[in-house]
Amino acid sequence: MTGIILSIGDELVLGQTIDTNSAWLSQQLAAIGCTILRHLTIGDDQLQIESAVRESAQLSDVVLISGGIGPTEDDLTRQALAAVMNEPLEPNSTWLAELENFFAQRSRPMPPINRIQAMIPRGASMIFNHAGTAAGIKTTLNRSDGKQCEVYVMPGVPKEMKKMFQTSVLPELQARSGGAVILSRTLHTFGLGESAIAERLGPLMHRDRNPSVGTTVSAGVVSLRINARFDSMQQASNQLARIESECRLALGDLIYGQDDQTLQEVVANQLFTINAKLPAGASPFTVTTAESCTGGLLAKMLTDLSGSSGYFHRGFITYSNEAKADLLGVDPQLIRQHGAVSEEVAKAMALGALERAQAKAALAISGIAGPTGGTPTKPVGTVCIALATTDDRVPVPSPGTPGEGQGGGHPPITTPTPALPRSTGRGGEEPVPIMTSTHGSAPQVHARTFFFPGDREMIRDRSAKMALTMLRFHLPGKSMPF
Amino acid sequence: MTGIILSIGDELVLGQTIDTNSAWLSQQLAAIGCTILRHLTIGDDQLQIESAVRESAQLSDVVLISGGIGPTEDDLTRQALAAVMNEPLEPNSTWLAELENFFAQRSRPMPPINRIQAMIPRGASMIFNHAGTAAGIKTTLNRSDGKQCEVYVMPGVPKEMKKMFQTSVLPELQARSGGAVILSRTLHTFGLGESAIAERLGPLMHRDRNPSVGTTVSAGVVSLRINARFDSMQQASNQLARIESECRLALGDLIYGQDDQTLQEVVANQLFTINAKLPAGASPFTVTTAESCTGGLLAKMLTDLSGSSGYFHRGFITYSNEAKADLLGVDPQLIRQHGAVSEEVAKAMALGALERAQAKAALAISGIAGPTGGTPTKPVGTVCIALATTDDRVPVPSPGTPGEGQGGGHPPITTPTPALPRSTGRGGEEPVPIMTSTHGSAPQVHARTFFFPGDREMIRDRSAKMALTMLRFHLPGKSMPF
Repeated sequence: MTGIILSIGDELVLGQTIDTNSAWLSQQLAAIGCTILRHLTIGDDQLQIESAVRESAQLSDVVLISGGIGPTEDDLTRQALAAVMNEPLEPNSTWLAELENFFAQRSRPMPPINRIQAMIPRGASMIFNHAGTAAGIKTTLNRSDGKQCEVYVMPGVPKEMKKMFQTSVLPELQARSGGAVILSRTLHTFGLGESAIAERLGPLMHRDRNPSVGTTVSAGVVSLRINARFDSMQQASNQLARIESECRLALGDLIYGQDDQTLQEVVANQLFTINAKLPAGASPFTVTTAESCTGGLLAKMLTDLSGSSGYFHRGFITYSNEAKADLLGVDPQLIRQHGAVSEEVAKAMALGALERAQAKAALAISGIAGPTGGTPTKPVGTVCIALATTDDRVPVPSPGTPGEGQGGGHPPITTPTPALPRSTGRGGEEPVPIMTSTHGSAPQVHARTFFFPGDREMIRDRSAKMALTMLRFHLPGKSMPF
Repeated sequence: MTGIILSIGDELVLGQTIDTNSAWLSQQLAAIGCTILRHLTIGDDQLQIESAVRESAQLSDVVLISGGIGPTEDDLTRQALAAVMNEPLEPNSTWLAELENFFAQRSRPMPPINRIQAMIPRGASMIFNHAGTAAGIKTTLNRSDGKQCEVYVMPGVPKEMKKMFQTSVLPELQARSGGAVILSRTLHTFGLGESAIAERLGPLMHRDRNPSVGTTVSAGVVSLRINARFDSMQQASNQLARIESECRLALGDLIYGQDDQTLQEVVANQLFTINAKLPAGASPFTVTTAESCTGGLLAKMLTDLSGSSGYFHRGFITYSNEAKADLLGVDPQLIRQHGAVSEEVAKAMALGALERAQAKAALAISGIAGPTGGTPTKPVGTVCIALATTDDRVPVPSPGTPGEGQGGGHPPITTPTPALPRSTGRGGEEPVPIMTSTHGSAPQVHARTFFFPGDREMIRDRSAKMALTMLRFHLPGKSMPF
């Protein structure tokens, strides 16, 4: 089965709106083994729409049209389809009743302009719209090769289109499609570059293999996309599972999640699980944050999920050196000696936050997000991240010798340091003891230095994700594999 | 002049990548008065690419192709173009030298596979690529109507494509385009809905006006797009300026910026300006934050710009009630009495943050981001935002009577309250006096309650943007117009 996706709208051809419908529909069609021949985008011009429908119908078995069925005068898809069919538009009584009911429920008279949304070319069928006022249309056009092309018209609003496609169009296409089945799975990693991931996958990524494995990168996340294309669902499903487990074997814990899962969701779920297993009455496992260059982004990510108040109670944004001393008890002398962007200061920030928040884990970030502020020894993109913990799981430092590998692209440096920073008092303030043993085992802390490429936004995003990654490995007591 | 945009790539027709090149190129073409007839997307199939090039060239004056000129075997655009031209591919000596130089500079031998990237159909011209290894191609195809079509082939990687288009393609098209000129301007607002903005614009938005004014909404930002389409650049420019000033007159301060400007950039620039005007030695105007439901997002936005350390030193994320008391000195009794999501608590958070950060302004946010946690009186989306200040500019409360208008869609409520919250001590801690007069005039505080629709991410985003908006109006001493 072959398909063409036709999108209608001036906002699309003028470039004011990016077309996302075509990609979504392509994925849906690919999943049932339909070969997509092309995407075609046309403005709100009836004659242009007519030609596009005619030529597309000649080329393929199915044409999926979205857009141009709103109530206003620039919505011309139904008129164009009627012209191609050489049939008049007629009111569809079922949808007209639905429309009137829709407005009656809202205690408004139906504006006369909306009546057009119940008009269907004679001989075509109406498709129910469960999310809006425009009825969809289905018809069959004859091709010059004697075959037929099924044409489906759906709304352009993505939410309405998706609902209509899934409810009414997909089941029909699935029934027609006796051909190949394509199943896909996406696995996500964070921490290593695309080429390092590819190297570990080795022959799994060879071209022309089926199932195929390809990589994409988005916002620092390197994802593997596995596509299995086979004659039967059973075969596709088995082969997909086989290659997925080979990929998981090759990458191990580098894979944090799959398909729609985000890194913050995975870490949140780890924390939810830990807290769900605690005995009744035990104080929850909580995480706190001490952020400099990320300015709150890490805490924002940790609270992206509903229910995050179960493990996150407070966080500190200490942008200035004074704030690091005031809010976290970082020794100003430590900052003078090593600089605010140093593993020493990151560790002191983490230990200070851990103590002051009475949390079980604290993540601290201090770095140079740029574009200004870099130096030859600490270029823009240098970020120190520390993790301090009081729980029993001692973070296992990863391999690496302190002080080596300062160049970009090298493996990050690790300085495992379970030592305590000096406790200090500031003038006019009580000295705050950094360490207590009020909640379990003695605190542990370790820090890493990373060099993230890119602009300010990228550096901040990667820093926060790397901090989450350190926590993701720490929680089950594992060491980071890079 | 008419144009067609042709995008090549399996990842596009399979829906694995969303095509953003076409929208970008459309905007560029529209700006020089070129009418875009269609976008067409084709997979990496030589025969399909050939047909697409042939049919597109017949329909329009210019065809812009992107994609399919990489070094691998699935990159077939140059082969397809050569076939359409009925000419062989020949190595372009200039680009071959560039390529060899490119690899020599990286101390690597040129992989033989890259040689294809210097191949150009005989009779076509090479287009320099300043951002990658694939040379572009320009040629002219004859149409059956006796006219000619200019074909440009560019890389699919957006960065490379944009650079090549701007450097080499756009100047040629501009020279050709003797026709209409379209100039555009986008003005951004935040705070009122699309229909309220449209109402204020009135007849400016009538269809078929030139310049035209349309609205779009993205992440809560309602933007006006003004398009002026005239015969000369001078006329387009004058008419655009005229309508822009009419829009600015109709919307006033609701407009926070234009074109690429973000709300955080505008607020950062306000703060940079205030600090630049301070007498030497004066302490800077600083802002602090106290965030509950936004979990750090507001502080992240305030630090999005480089140089934000000039006005932002620290922020507090107080997710739990205990954190609000510990870190900000909020009276637990106040929380018990009014709930954490209340104007009273938001004001106490702002005043506490202001005092403890010794800042000139403090923004506090407490709300219900959902999807759980809503109640009949405080549904999901209820967010209280407070602004406390010590500078001389007293925030002018906007119209509204406390206690009225609790329904969604009503104007937000304002409770102007310059009063001080009670100072309280917690067990084992020193009572912290909330108010001091150590830095200028007495603190002022006011709070607003908002009802934001949408999911958790939307509610958090709108909350942070509304807090920035309150600050944006406060800084020049203005009251919010909604």
